Amino acid sequence: MLKKPWGGRFKKKTHKVAERFSASIETDKRLYREDIEGSIAHAKMLGQVGIISQREAKSIIKGLREIQKEIENGKFPFREEFEDIHLNIEKRLIEKIGETGGKLHTARSRNDQIVLDERLYLRRETTEILGLIKGVAEEFIRLAEENIDVIIPLYTHLQAAQPVLLSHHLLAYFEMLKRDRERFIECLKRINIMPLGAGAGAGTSFPIDRRYVAELLGFPEVTRNSIDTVSDRDFIVEFISNSSILMMHLSRLSEELVIWSSKEFDFVDLGDEFTTGSSIMPQKRNPDIAELLRGKTGKVYGNLISILTVMKGLPLSYNRDLQEDKEPMFGTVDTLKSCLYVLKEMLKNIKFKPENMKRSLLNSFITATDLADYLARKGIPFRQAHEIVGRIVRYAEEKRRDLLQLSISELKMFSNLFEEDVYEFITLEGSISSRKSYGGTAKENVVKMIEEAREEIKMW
Amino acid sequence: MLKKPWGGRFKKKTHKVAERFSASIETDKRLYREDIEGSIAHAKMLGQVGIISQREAKSIIKGLREIQKEIENGKFPFREEFEDIHLNIEKRLIEKIGETGGKLHTARSRNDQIVLDERLYLRRETTEILGLIKGVAEEFIRLAEENIDVIIPLYTHLQAAQPVLLSHHLLAYFEMLKRDRERFIECLKRINIMPLGAGAGAGTSFPIDRRYVAELLGFPEVTRNSIDTVSDRDFIVEFISNSSILMMHLSRLSEELVIWSSKEFDFVDLGDEFTTGSSIMPQKRNPDIAELLRGKTGKVYGNLISILTVMKGLPLSYNRDLQEDKEPMFGTVDTLKSCLYVLKEMLKNIKFKPENMKRSLLNSFITATDLADYLARKGIPFRQAHEIVGRIVRYAEEKRRDLLQLSISELKMFSNLFEEDVYEFITLEGSISSRKSYGGTAKENVVKMIEEAREEIKMW
Amino acid sequence: MLKKPWGGRFKKKTHKVAERFSASIETDKRLYREDIEGSIAHAKMLGQVGIISQREAKSIIKGLREIQKEIENGKFPFREEFEDIHLNIEKRLIEKIGETGGKLHTARSRNDQIVLDERLYLRRETTEILGLIKGVAEEFIRLAEENIDVIIPLYTHLQAAQPVLLSHHLLAYFEMLKRDRERFIECLKRINIMPLGAGAGAGTSFPIDRRYVAELLGFPEVTRNSIDTVSDRDFIVEFISNSSILMMHLSRLSEELVIWSSKEFDFVDLGDEFTTGSSIMPQKRNPDIAELLRGKTGKVYGNLISILTVMKGLPLSYNRDLQEDKEPMFGTVDTLKSCLYVLKEMLKNIKFKPENMKRSLLNSFITATDLADYLARKGIPFRQAHEIVGRIVRYAEEKRRDLLQLSISELKMFSNLFEEDVYEFITLEGSISSRKSYGGTAKENVVKMIEEAREEIKMW
Amino acid sequence: MLKKPWGGRFKKKTHKVAERFSASIETDKRLYREDIEGSIAHAKMLGQVGIISQREAKSIIKGLREIQKEIENGKFPFREEFEDIHLNIEKRLIEKIGETGGKLHTARSRNDQIVLDERLYLRRETTEILGLIKGVAEEFIRLAEENIDVIIPLYTHLQAAQPVLLSHHLLAYFEMLKRDRERFIECLKRINIMPLGAGAGAGTSFPIDRRYVAELLGFPEVTRNSIDTVSDRDFIVEFISNSSILMMHLSRLSEELVIWSSKEFDFVDLGDEFTTGSSIMPQKRNPDIAELLRGKTGKVYGNLISILTVMKGLPLSYNRDLQEDKEPMFGTVDTLKSCLYVLKEMLKNIKFKPENMKRSLLNSFITATDLADYLARKGIPFRQAHEIVGRIVRYAEEKRRDLLQLSISELKMFSNLFEEDVYEFITLEGSISSRKSYGGTAKENVVKMIEEAREEIKMW
Repeated sequence: MLKKPWGGRFKKKTHKVAERFSASIETDKRLYREDIEGSIAHAKMLGQVGIISQREAKSIIKGLREIQKEIENGKFPFREEFEDIHLNIEKRLIEKIGETGGKLHTARSRNDQIVLDERLYLRRETTEILGLIKGVAEEFIRLAEENIDVIIPLYTHLQAAQPVLLSHHLLAYFEMLKRDRERFIECLKRINIMPLGAGAGAGTSFPIDRRYVAELLGFPEVTRNSIDTVSDRDFIVEFISNSSILMMHLSRLSEELVIWSSKEFDFVDLGDEFTTGSSIMPQKRNPDIAELLRGKTGKVYGNLISILTVMKGLPLSYNRDLQEDKEPMFGTVDTLKSCLYVLKEMLKNIKFKPENMKRSLLNSFITATDLADYLARKGIPFRQAHEIVGRIVRYAEEKRRDLLQLSISELKMFSNLFEEDVYEFITLEGSISSRKSYGGTAKENVVKMIEEAREEIKMW
Repeated sequence: MLKKPWGGRFKKKTHKVAERFSASIETDKRLYREDIEGSIAHAKMLGQVGIISQREAKSIIKGLREIQKEIENGKFPFREEFEDIHLNIEKRLIEKIGETGGKLHTARSRNDQIVLDERLYLRRETTEILGLIKGVAEEFIRLAEENIDVIIPLYTHLQAAQPVLLSHHLLAYFEMLKRDRERFIECLKRINIMPLGAGAGAGTSFPIDRRYVAELLGFPEVTRNSIDTVSDRDFIVEFISNSSILMMHLSRLSEELVIWSSKEFDFVDLGDEFTTGSSIMPQKRNPDIAELLRGKTGKVYGNLISILTVMKGLPLSYNRDLQEDKEPMFGTVDTLKSCLYVLKEMLKNIKFKPENMKRSLLNSFITATDLADYLARKGIPFRQAHEIVGRIVRYAEEKRRDLLQLSISELKMFSNLFEEDVYEFITLEGSISSRKSYGGTAKENVVKMIEEAREEIKMW
Repeated sequence: MLKKPWGGRFKKKTHKVAERFSASIETDKRLYREDIEGSIAHAKMLGQVGIISQREAKSIIKGLREIQKEIENGKFPFREEFEDIHLNIEKRLIEKIGETGGKLHTARSRNDQIVLDERLYLRRETTEILGLIKGVAEEFIRLAEENIDVIIPLYTHLQAAQPVLLSHHLLAYFEMLKRDRERFIECLKRINIMPLGAGAGAGTSFPIDRRYVAELLGFPEVTRNSIDTVSDRDFIVEFISNSSILMMHLSRLSEELVIWSSKEFDFVDLGDEFTTGSSIMPQKRNPDIAELLRGKTGKVYGNLISILTVMKGLPLSYNRDLQEDKEPMFGTVDTLKSCLYVLKEMLKNIKFKPENMKRSLLNSFITATDLADYLARKGIPFRQAHEIVGRIVRYAEEKRRDLLQLSISELKMFSNLFEEDVYEFITLEGSISSRKSYGGTAKENVVKMIEEAREEIKMW
Repeated sequence: MLKKPWGGRFKKKTHKVAERFSASIETDKRLYREDIEGSIAHAKMLGQVGIISQREAKSIIKGLREIQKEIENGKFPFREEFEDIHLNIEKRLIEKIGETGGKLHTARSRNDQIVLDERLYLRRETTEILGLIKGVAEEFIRLAEENIDVIIPLYTHLQAAQPVLLSHHLLAYFEMLKRDRERFIECLKRINIMPLGAGAGAGTSFPIDRRYVAELLGFPEVTRNSIDTVSDRDFIVEFISNSSILMMHLSRLSEELVIWSSKEFDFVDLGDEFTTGSSIMPQKRNPDIAELLRGKTGKVYGNLISILTVMKGLPLSYNRDLQEDKEPMFGTVDTLKSCLYVLKEMLKNIKFKPENMKRSLLNSFITATDLADYLARKGIPFRQAHEIVGRIVRYAEEKRRDLLQLSISELKMFSNLFEEDVYEFITLEGSISSRKSYGGTAKENVVKMIEEAREEIKMW
């Protein structure tokens, strides 16, 4: 049996069942790159300040680089009995360069080492995710541009409410992604803090230089309290919280795409390339990708509850429960990246069907609000105008006619204030172009918003 | 490019990114055994009722059995472009036995097929989990027997409250496991229903014999509504709910073991085999296994939220979101099984430390309730007796003495009703043996409960 | 200041802020009825076995009944400084009947008392909920009966898949409710166990008769382990788990009703009485009730996570954290009852629109599976038949015709096996009546299922 | 019956059951202040830009101010049939000032009005919460200062690991609160954006001035997309996410206080004022407040899942499901504020017990790491040093001695590198003062950190 690196005090070896249960190597080997990167910086610093010799430092660094290659070439012998990625690498280092390898762990503990790995990992992944968010946002801007004249019903309660530009609707998702981006950037600040040097939780008695390590690894700051450093997983919880909100946004979009893909709405064609067929019904074209995006929301919400549950009621400082932070973190990163990536590709292929949107627009008294506003502008209290138009809608519905099809004399039956000019206000175009209030759907607004978004995104 | 089995209507092939995103084969290949078992039963039935010939049925079955061997020998070519386990196997079957293989999917759809696989899987795993629950329960009974004379403080608010038998405490976990078992058995009834024949959701026009398939696969019942059959995942949600409650129980036990392992309590020795060391602090012996059990609760709670989120607001019948039911299901099964297994082994190795429990017992006025009960039995309203004893405790605390160390004259300062016999009631043993109410901690009760548990578990 | 009933040992009174923070009376006063009912049974038993005199028991019971009237008449002086419903009632009892009132708490603790209250409460509410489930289920049966000839598309992926009877679809919800009912009944068994007599957790030294109390309160069983009795909240978690599944079902129905209420689908009229208008858009009729039903799912899922979080990692036995079980329990009961009640009323008013369903049916090649089955019955492997029909659908789509509108010679372009009789199979009625497999949508099946449901529900 | 303000089109009145079910007035009347504040600003703007006359604006504002007084004096007739706070106030306004009151709702909708109310509310409450966080943080700084010489074991795995200053431990909570504060401040930016003018979702055709409204209400920004404005609840989700992390921190502190309050640890005295007694056990002093703080974590986690579930898969724009955002929002605010408030008071009363901490420190080979570091500094690879010290600990444990009690010759049995100076390093004080690495527990570090925190908090 291989000796545990911490086994000095133990008389009996770990039970095989316990070893298997507690080993995290299957999960945390994903962190090999960060672990080696962190160890190299640590070794450099140890050499620099003279805790080990420069020769020793070099030997360690060389060994670590070789190990990285072994791992990347699939030659590294991962061993469950060495528990985790840290000890697997350290043991291998000693095998390769001899007992000098045992000096690498001077002035650190796995308690600060793992947090360093996680922060390096999440920093890189957050940066990638920010790039993917940008990519999706660009598609929304492009689609908004290309569909600038398409009118779609704004739905409230899934009932057509008012005509809006499809571009305006698409830009709503731009706004969501913009907030998502802000949140990830702010979270990144809190991820991007260097923890090494906290040791097991009390700091270390070696004359280390934490800021030098931070510099080598590109961290602008170092953590300020060693106990907090090894106890804290806020940065992971916050990352998964932000991810949950992002996935919630994608689930809303997906829901819309699924509904719009139904034959009854038929507002959108996702293309053969992003729909799939049925194993039994030959006529089906299913919006599977949108459904999966919606479904995967569950996974990220679940990860959020996992990590919050793990952390609940945990006394300081490090407890082994914290090992359970990795699956939610990895699972969330993987889900987000694949969702954002596939979404971007799907948006590239999406085709809207303005004629079908028109059908819905004409079918729903959708400019009734404009009719009420017309009266309100003539001095009738809005509440009464609303009431009058409610009766007009009932009348039109019974006659099976649209508002535009009511004659002026019919309208006058409800209020003498109606004049011929009313018809300008209750066409789709009239309605839209009237909504010039900042943030409203008038084309001039939307065009300007697209320009702003184009400018803005350059700096993302 | 390989043709999709459902590709007849499609002009363009699936986008590579979409294919990768939607493929579930990496996850659902775990169901190969169930998928083949179900397909064999289906083929037998198709042959039996004459939808295909007996010869064709035999050929299909032979092919499926070969495929099972291929998979088990690691020779099966899993292909992402065939999406899932069902199509991978079907395609391979056609490669092996020719176009007859294409007859297997007659009168069924992936919509009912996947539910069959999941029900077969969860039936087997629930049965295994029931066995593991029994194993853990047996350890609690054994520990209760072996420690029948050990006294431990009952804690409320983590404050020593009353003396109880450790055995009585251990049997509380037996009660929890008994309820867990009941819930899994009841859930099993709802898992154990045969869904095949629902087709895509409307049933099928082929003259199939669903009860025959059920018989072949050992299901006592068949589902009654084809739409519900393909839409329903209650059995998975219920399974994960029950698992969450079970994990909650294990988290409570683990918390106790962690606290009891602290040097300050020092009530338990988990043994070198079930504790681990530190990479930096040579003196540590950490109750990692208990901590991990506690931490893994997060995973199962998370899975519960995942599946509930997936199902929320999903219209009938099958939607691709349902693909996301598999990770929570597999993840929960794996977690439960490994937790129950390691717990059983850990309980086998556990040693209690009665002398340290005694130290806590003697340190806490733990028989104060008995003192109040003494007065109440002499006719003082309990509420007043409680008040009097509260003052006695304060007095003893100030004098730094235990209740047993107060003289009768001191006691009489607080109430004339105290007589010499009071001391019998306020020893640890006196206190325990007095709690003869059904369910109470008197030794005669506990011994009987152990016997009952012994009898009961024989039938588990 | 009023003296705390447990204040004997304390030198300083509770801080006002702490008192307010920890008081639960605002929440738990809802349990006054159960608390009094339990106390009466306890007092009867104490008198019966002679722990107090029969005269004292009578006086206590009379006092408790008066207190109940005071509460129900809004005359009871609830006081925060007495923390909870138990102490409020006990203090009031002592005010009313003198120090005899202080004998009521003999041989019990708030730890077992609160569990008794909760079990009594949840037993009654579960019974009410079972009645409400029955009421909703009856509406589904009635609607299935009344709409027996209405055809609706079965949707998978929100794409019309196959024609089914609307009745068949409605009965899918009957199946869900049937499972919900089973789960609540099973949970009720575990609620319906009498906990009093566990005392603070060790049992009691008084010669109580727990089975007599159980009998008085209608419990078939008593709890078996006093420690488990005061630590356990499984029955609440399980109740909320079951409620989450039920709400998930309602959210699915609600989603369907919202989609079906859209003008684009227009399958259903919820009636003026169950829709609401807009404060600004006079034409709107919004399916608010369905949306709220869907939204309230969030509340119950949240309650499930609340209680699971509270319980996670809590050592035995009673901890004050358990006070936080009440809000999730009450909130879930209230939500469930109001949702089931409003749903039943809404279903009474619902009108379906078969003509609009027909429009969707004719628009979607919905009998393509039947065409493939036709070929498969003639010996073509289903997988090939599926492929052929896929091409036919593409052809028809390009020609903008429905399957029934293709001539036999056009069909023969794809396969020689098509004969004139094919048209019988691909009408909506032909498709439906062919699905005779058990659980399938053929009218004869559905009629029989309605009969079975009618019979079954009599025994609910 | 009272006419609904939106009832123009409806033939039948709302069903009583539906009315009760959908009314939100019981919940949202808490927003009356924000609703009136927002309406006053809206009326001012309408008058300013001439949509209504200045006289009308004044009349409306006067009416609204009277209504506010009515509400605050408990004189306002809240009516369920007017659904929510908005319509209750509007109806009352019309009662009071006549039909001019009906002009208030010009150019807005309840869809943007409710978001305004929520943003005003959450802005104020977040500010209050920031103040409460500061209050708690100040207590931690004060406690750190006052206990600067107290040594406590740093626990990992609830095993004493290394000696640290209690102050250092307390400052770990300061770090957590600092991050909590940052997150709330960042969230506040996203709360603090003015939504009015989005109307029902498309903007409005009236020439409103949104920036003027923003100015009146103190918002630095206005929302940019009307559809997003009425669909978005990110600011609430984010607020509750941040609250969940904060509560998680409090649950960790509470767990520590509960464990430290146990007689076995006995590190802390929470005082009579912040502990409570037992209804049955006269000797008990329970850390109820800490337990409740821990338990209330469940409520906030649950609220997070509630709101995330509500939002999942909701198509744009406003849907009635969004009404369910209020209970989680209010519930979270209430919980947070009461928890922070009681915590601050409790911390004011807390007393630490250094002598008992010392007992734990001397009992656990807590300076073993220092012994290993000693050897490592002499050139032995840390990994070997760790191994050697592991064996020393086992030796000392067998001899029932502490490390300081081993003679130099005994130490030399394990390594010749030990010299007399070793004893300096392995005293508690020696160990602590050696940990000078930035963030470590050396007193000079901690004192400096306290100073920094003192400076920093001035600007909170």
